[in-house]
Amino acid sequence: MKQNLRQQIHEIVFESESRAGKIFDIALLIMILSSIVVVMLDSVHGLHLKYGKIYHQIEWVFTILFSIEYFIRLIVVRRKRKFVFSFLGIVDLLAILPTYFTLILSGTQPLLVMRALRLLRIFRIFRLSHFLVDIRFLSGALLSSFRKIGIFFLFALVLVIILASIMYLVENHEHGFNNIPQCIYWAITTITTVGYGDVVPITPLGKIIANILMLIGFAIIAVPTGIITTEMAMALKSRDAGHEVCRSCERRGHDHDAVHCKFCGSKFQDEHLESYRGKSD
Amino acid sequence: MKQNLRQQIHEIVFESESRAGKIFDIALLIMILSSIVVVMLDSVHGLHLKYGKIYHQIEWVFTILFSIEYFIRLIVVRRKRKFVFSFLGIVDLLAILPTYFTLILSGTQPLLVMRALRLLRIFRIFRLSHFLVDIRFLSGALLSSFRKIGIFFLFALVLVIILASIMYLVENHEHGFNNIPQCIYWAITTITTVGYGDVVPITPLGKIIANILMLIGFAIIAVPTGIITTEMAMALKSRDAGHEVCRSCERRGHDHDAVHCKFCGSKFQDEHLESYRGKSD
Amino acid sequence: MKQNLRQQIHEIVFESESRAGKIFDIALLIMILSSIVVVMLDSVHGLHLKYGKIYHQIEWVFTILFSIEYFIRLIVVRRKRKFVFSFLGIVDLLAILPTYFTLILSGTQPLLVMRALRLLRIFRIFRLSHFLVDIRFLSGALLSSFRKIGIFFLFALVLVIILASIMYLVENHEHGFNNIPQCIYWAITTITTVGYGDVVPITPLGKIIANILMLIGFAIIAVPTGIITTEMAMALKSRDAGHEVCRSCERRGHDHDAVHCKFCGSKFQDEHLESYRGKSD
Amino acid sequence: MKQNLRQQIHEIVFESESRAGKIFDIALLIMILSSIVVVMLDSVHGLHLKYGKIYHQIEWVFTILFSIEYFIRLIVVRRKRKFVFSFLGIVDLLAILPTYFTLILSGTQPLLVMRALRLLRIFRIFRLSHFLVDIRFLSGALLSSFRKIGIFFLFALVLVIILASIMYLVENHEHGFNNIPQCIYWAITTITTVGYGDVVPITPLGKIIANILMLIGFAIIAVPTGIITTEMAMALKSRDAGHEVCRSCERRGHDHDAVHCKFCGSKFQDEHLESYRGKSD
Repeated sequence: MKQNLRQQIHEIVFESESRAGKIFDIALLIMILSSIVVVMLDSVHGLHLKYGKIYHQIEWVFTILFSIEYFIRLIVVRRKRKFVFSFLGIVDLLAILPTYFTLILSGTQPLLVMRALRLLRIFRIFRLSHFLVDIRFLSGALLSSFRKIGIFFLFALVLVIILASIMYLVENHEHGFNNIPQCIYWAITTITTVGYGDVVPITPLGKIIANILMLIGFAIIAVPTGIITTEMAMALKSRDAGHEVCRSCERRGHDHDAVHCKFCGSKFQDEHLESYRGKSD
Repeated sequence: MKQNLRQQIHEIVFESESRAGKIFDIALLIMILSSIVVVMLDSVHGLHLKYGKIYHQIEWVFTILFSIEYFIRLIVVRRKRKFVFSFLGIVDLLAILPTYFTLILSGTQPLLVMRALRLLRIFRIFRLSHFLVDIRFLSGALLSSFRKIGIFFLFALVLVIILASIMYLVENHEHGFNNIPQCIYWAITTITTVGYGDVVPITPLGKIIANILMLIGFAIIAVPTGIITTEMAMALKSRDAGHEVCRSCERRGHDHDAVHCKFCGSKFQDEHLESYRGKSD
Repeated sequence: MKQNLRQQIHEIVFESESRAGKIFDIALLIMILSSIVVVMLDSVHGLHLKYGKIYHQIEWVFTILFSIEYFIRLIVVRRKRKFVFSFLGIVDLLAILPTYFTLILSGTQPLLVMRALRLLRIFRIFRLSHFLVDIRFLSGALLSSFRKIGIFFLFALVLVIILASIMYLVENHEHGFNNIPQCIYWAITTITTVGYGDVVPITPLGKIIANILMLIGFAIIAVPTGIITTEMAMALKSRDAGHEVCRSCERRGHDHDAVHCKFCGSKFQDEHLESYRGKSD
Repeated sequence: MKQNLRQQIHEIVFESESRAGKIFDIALLIMILSSIVVVMLDSVHGLHLKYGKIYHQIEWVFTILFSIEYFIRLIVVRRKRKFVFSFLGIVDLLAILPTYFTLILSGTQPLLVMRALRLLRIFRIFRLSHFLVDIRFLSGALLSSFRKIGIFFLFALVLVIILASIMYLVENHEHGFNNIPQCIYWAITTITTVGYGDVVPITPLGKIIANILMLIGFAIIAVPTGIITTEMAMALKSRDAGHEVCRSCERRGHDHDAVHCKFCGSKFQDEHLESYRGKSD
């Protein structure tokens, strides 16, 4: 089978099955990590004064390397439009743009940490392993929990707005409870059990309301947990359920103890069941 | 089928199946949200000084619009008494009263955030969707957990009162532990893992008791979570389990999508399935 | 059936089946609550100065009433020794002793909040209701989780001691990390996600260790929750499992789909199964 | 059966089945605990000034005793190399080295709390009890959750880095948000709901981002909990489920205590059950 250069490069930069592809991905990850570390170090005042120039140069090296990588990707990919507007395509662009912006604007360098999003490429390396199954499992459980958790958060938000407004009146617009948005900030800080302590109730009634909010937060933390746990349990259960195909109607999803196909009613043959049972262990 | 005006208006303001009803509901939601935002902005001192007058006028416009809406609801609804004393009816009234109160009293404006409760109308718009199923599922699980969580909270409360009183003695009525109610405020702040830090133990013994309270809080957060998770799992299980009996072998436990009995293979009759499926929705 | 006075009083003070018993229990609860409220109010400095004398008198009234109640209990109970050394017997005594101690010692009054333990008597009133089932369910799940959670806490404690000692070195015995016990106090405050903020790391390395401790705490909160949830799920499952008795060997615990007794092998009779299935819904 | 001295000592210091072995283990635990308490007390400045010398002497006594113990272990153990580089072997060495280091270096004494790791020997004493089953259950559930929780933490970390960098810009490099590492410290403190309050957002936009981070933290705490709970439930289920096949009808799913097949009623053979029961322990 003959392969042209473009196909080979595509395999290296977009896939990780081949040895070269894996090496490329690992090298890329190390570069991403290094570039993030440099951005972070540069944000430390003392280090910036000392090594700011060197950091700047390293940043440009990384940016140019990433730019080259982006253009190679753009050249070898077949559906260019789809790549440019895909999640990873946008992230790749965001990872190089801020450095070029610094030529015009100042202070955009911290935006380079957007490169952290590129760390998600780490899952590319593990593509062939069990990681993908787990990611699918986790994201599946989160997605199917999404609506329920959303509804729940809406109720919590209405509660937060009302209790925050009551606190605005109770604490008499003072000591941090100066306006309703500020009170909402306090209420969310309290209901999520973060409790910075930058805004605290002073009046006895305010303290009672704060305590009620804490207890609500303590109780409702159970709700998203319960939702996600049951979704995960369901996902696991359906994954474990029989995948054996009925020989008559070719449908799946039969219970372990089924003797007849629940869809077409044909009796399962013995060797079928044997293989099935053997597999289920 | 002929419909008089009252019926038509009823459909628009109380239901959301029709196109007009949906538009009305969405417009109402936007108005509620806007009115809440105005109340919030008005509570910010700087903005109040600048735009207070405009906010005041906008508030009156919303109040008059909500008043008109309330009276339309009152006119078109059949059982007026039931509507007035229903949860949504009371909320609708609370959403307009505070503005009128400001004619007599001052400082009642923040009460307008009670309008946030009207945001719960958002679920009206989604009535035909799957949201209602989820809300029923969530509220069902919470309601059936209610008694168990209540018992649990009572035990926790007794514990909090006793440990708070011990702290009152240990910290010698000082630095925030000035009286028992204050100590209870501290104990709840600690056991719920909020930990503002406005009241902290100073004495070594006080710190040990605080640590014990933290560990208790950390351990007991598991209890409401466990209760709600198991209730949800039960609710899901009973929703999924087929209670219908096979007419041939009289065994249960068939899946929702089963057409044949999985034990004896006899086909389920159509009307049987129909009634069954109708029931499960 | 003739009953002497002692038996009748026993029924009133120790049981709550009879009307008089219920009234007695509710009256007692109100008295316990009132007495706790008085102790709390008395601890507030301002109120103590104003109403201290009245509170003192009320306290003595409650103490004398509780003393009378204690002696009545002691007289009518058959096994006096067992009552005196039972949990509720000790609590009843602790609820009256502190007031008498104030005749000799001062400052023992806050100990009166021990009366809060008497609030647990509230479950006595609900004895006939479903509350007992729930309490048994909760305490059963907690008890069977106890060993696992204990093991888990021991591991966490070892971790806390080691990380606390490292912080003692890292933060150079300064700003709150003055000694190892203090560092352990900080570590527990952090790992339980309470985070008062009275002791916070200053050095970069200290902050990294603090962050690691937070992430550990965030992750391990899942462990007691997982333990209790699975225990509860197991308890529910075993409660739901078939309680039907086999007619041959009279043993319980058969699955819903069982056709033969799993202990003696005798076939279940049809009417047996019918009644069983009817009951299981 | 003749036993030489070495075997007997091995039984005492490495095992706890014999009476002498148990006494040795308990004595060792008490010594470990006492030695940790001494290190802690010595770290308290006031106590160090008063009793520092005595603590120093006690520490040397413990160190010499632990050294003797270590050498006895080294002598009686058969595979010396394996012991020295085993986890417990390294811990045993770490427990004595810091004291000897103080002869050369100062300030290494707090490292003696490494001895806390030796507390894990406590499980040795309980070896024959049910504790080992629970530890295996817990560690099994944690190990099988490890990959999923790791993936989840990686996603959370990317989110934290990005939000921290945004906060660095939003809060204008001021009041605690001085550099990106500092912002990451703040973000982890917030997302884990610890919330020290040493670094808090000042700008309105910063407060909104902080609130979003809190809500994310509040929601995602559910994920590790869900993962561990489902893993535990699976572990319990697979432990409970009988995988043995009935020899007559070849069906599975019998309970552990079953004597007869629940489907066909045929009696399980004794050797079958024996092997089965032996396996399940």
